[in-house]
Amino acid sequence: MQKVDHIGIAVKSMDHSIDYYIHTLGFKLLAIEAVVSQNVRVAFIDAGNIKLELLEPLGETGAIAKFLEKRGEGVHHIAFGVTDIRTRMAELRAKGVQLVQEEPKPGAGGAEVAFLHPKSSFGVLYELCDKSGKGD
Amino acid sequence: MQKVDHIGIAVKSMDHSIDYYIHTLGFKLLAIEAVVSQNVRVAFIDAGNIKLELLEPLGETGAIAKFLEKRGEGVHHIAFGVTDIRTRMAELRAKGVQLVQEEPKPGAGGAEVAFLHPKSSFGVLYELCDKSGKGD
Repeated sequence: MQKVDHIGIAVKSMDHSIDYYIHTLGFKLLAIEAVVSQNVRVAFIDAGNIKLELLEPLGETGAIAKFLEKRGEGVHHIAFGVTDIRTRMAELRAKGVQLVQEEPKPGAGGAEVAFLHPKSSFGVLYELCDKSGKGD
Repeated sequence: MQKVDHIGIAVKSMDHSIDYYIHTLGFKLLAIEAVVSQNVRVAFIDAGNIKLELLEPLGETGAIAKFLEKRGEGVHHIAFGVTDIRTRMAELRAKGVQLVQEEPKPGAGGAEVAFLHPKSSFGVLYELCDKSGKGD
């Protein structure tokens, strides 16, 4: 792992929270998109050296809807920027890390992503985020 | 706010979690110190573009001990690197943001820090972290 790409933050209302990040904290909105496979709407905020990814559920199902129901709004995951995601996943598995999925799945911004189980990571949900367009 | 300085992560055992960050994830340990005023031991991990700050309680009292008891291990706060912390605090107050303390307090690494209340920040505990040595 070489750097943090973004911090994912679960929010109930994207409109209200974007307003806070832009007008109160003074950050810039980069993009908004729907990730239908994960049933979320995503807003990327430019926080200078990393991005903040606001995640709003599009309905009552999906990981973010469940997270909000159980824990309320707050930090959902931290994403490491990687290349060769399948190699990184194999290396972590070889070191005993439990991954949430066997294969990378499509994430926001055209990335391939995979999650490390919080049980392996002392309570933190880490994501591997590969934007190199190859994924292997 | 211009950039993220570090992500604070509450852990039960610093030794076990440091081992994970260094040997499994491949990051570098920068420093370990005690912050007696907050009853924690702190390890800074170099995650490339930002730092990860592992926070282990030194006893059964203090914010991190309470957090672990209530929520378990995981992300505790996100810290923005700032200068002129008192000016930043005044600007945020003027915009209606609730701060946890009236005045900056001493943090790890000789910084002056202040926290934004999660009620103002859609569930996220944000810290202002000023290492400029002036604080005003």
